[in-house]
Amino acid sequence: MKIDDDKRSGRKHRAILQAATATFVNKGYDGTSMEDIATKAGVSKQTVYKHFADKKQLFAEIVLATTSHVDQVVDLVAKSLNDTQNLNEDLAALARRFVTELMDVELLQIRRLVLANADRMPELGRKWYANGFERVLAGLATHFQKLAERDLLHFEDPLLAANHFVGMLLWIPVNEAMFTGNIPPRSKASLDHLANAAVRAFLAAYGGPSRPSAKARR
Amino acid sequence: MKIDDDKRSGRKHRAILQAATATFVNKGYDGTSMEDIATKAGVSKQTVYKHFADKKQLFAEIVLATTSHVDQVVDLVAKSLNDTQNLNEDLAALARRFVTELMDVELLQIRRLVLANADRMPELGRKWYANGFERVLAGLATHFQKLAERDLLHFEDPLLAANHFVGMLLWIPVNEAMFTGNIPPRSKASLDHLANAAVRAFLAAYGGPSRPSAKARR
Repeated sequence: MKIDDDKRSGRKHRAILQAATATFVNKGYDGTSMEDIATKAGVSKQTVYKHFADKKQLFAEIVLATTSHVDQVVDLVAKSLNDTQNLNEDLAALARRFVTELMDVELLQIRRLVLANADRMPELGRKWYANGFERVLAGLATHFQKLAERDLLHFEDPLLAANHFVGMLLWIPVNEAMFTGNIPPRSKASLDHLANAAVRAFLAAYGGPSRPSAKARR
Repeated sequence: MKIDDDKRSGRKHRAILQAATATFVNKGYDGTSMEDIATKAGVSKQTVYKHFADKKQLFAEIVLATTSHVDQVVDLVAKSLNDTQNLNEDLAALARRFVTELMDVELLQIRRLVLANADRMPELGRKWYANGFERVLAGLATHFQKLAERDLLHFEDPLLAANHFVGMLLWIPVNEAMFTGNIPPRSKASLDHLANAAVRAFLAAYGGPSRPSAKARR
């Protein structure tokens, strides 16, 4: 019976998280009550409180879950770079996958909620930045560094190179989505085009055969 | 007397705008009343309403004024590129000036307010994006195109090149400021470092002597 209880409790936990995500996205943080979330999840308000101390903690769990998901995806795909035989192709595949993940409608909506509430929940904004942004960049930098050791990439600072890769890839679509609500969302073809262009520019800047470091500094 | 009246009215208009900016930034859009703004500006509430129909219109005027300011700065500095004799130096000067302007504390705070309210004021978000983002990128692209005609830059799509320039320059500092509140603000030296690195990577990708377009496509 204990195992059944755990299973049921896990299912409820996930149902509450899903219901809360949908409600926060639709009504904003202020417009959402624990009551709304319980109704949407089909559980009692007490059950919600049994799983989450308060609205703020529930919101934080949703936000931080998205950052760890993105992190996993990047790590998984970036690992494929380690023994690449065709950097151009594999980096382009990574870029296309990365931009598709990042442009997920729900993820963008949660990102906007974090930004909108960063004033009153500065801890959460900082955690999202550290666990999302900085960790993804650090992960990419580690993989780029391995490519540099194979003489496939050339830079002085792997983190700066990772920053340039992500900045070229995401500056336009993410900001467009933040300010205009991503309506209608960009097509897969349009995102692929941005990804391929970013990889071309990145490899023109940091790829190619070995060359004197003076060139990179010019 | 008419001229004196106009002058006085212009001064009041500016005082209201300044007071409103400070109040919106401190208290958020919802937390700000026309009463608060009148008090801060040292005028009557009627005077505020004589100049601005309502809070929403006042907020919109502040937001759109910041985009046109940024646009002017970029245009002014980018013009200096047109007859450059040292692209590396002049582009780095542009990048440093651009990132400094964009990282202005008040501008970042207004940007965050726009993002936070983009749900309920989608028109304003779209206008900020069109008049800020897209216009700045289009302006840069025009100047980059002139450099391409002088064989100093090489690309297929000037707008994409401008997007890559700005993305490499701003991805990190702007997102950091949005999520963490820009506290403490980055030093001038740190921003200069980001600007110089972005220009190095940009020129490695798009600058240098003429070369077969196949290279850029690789």
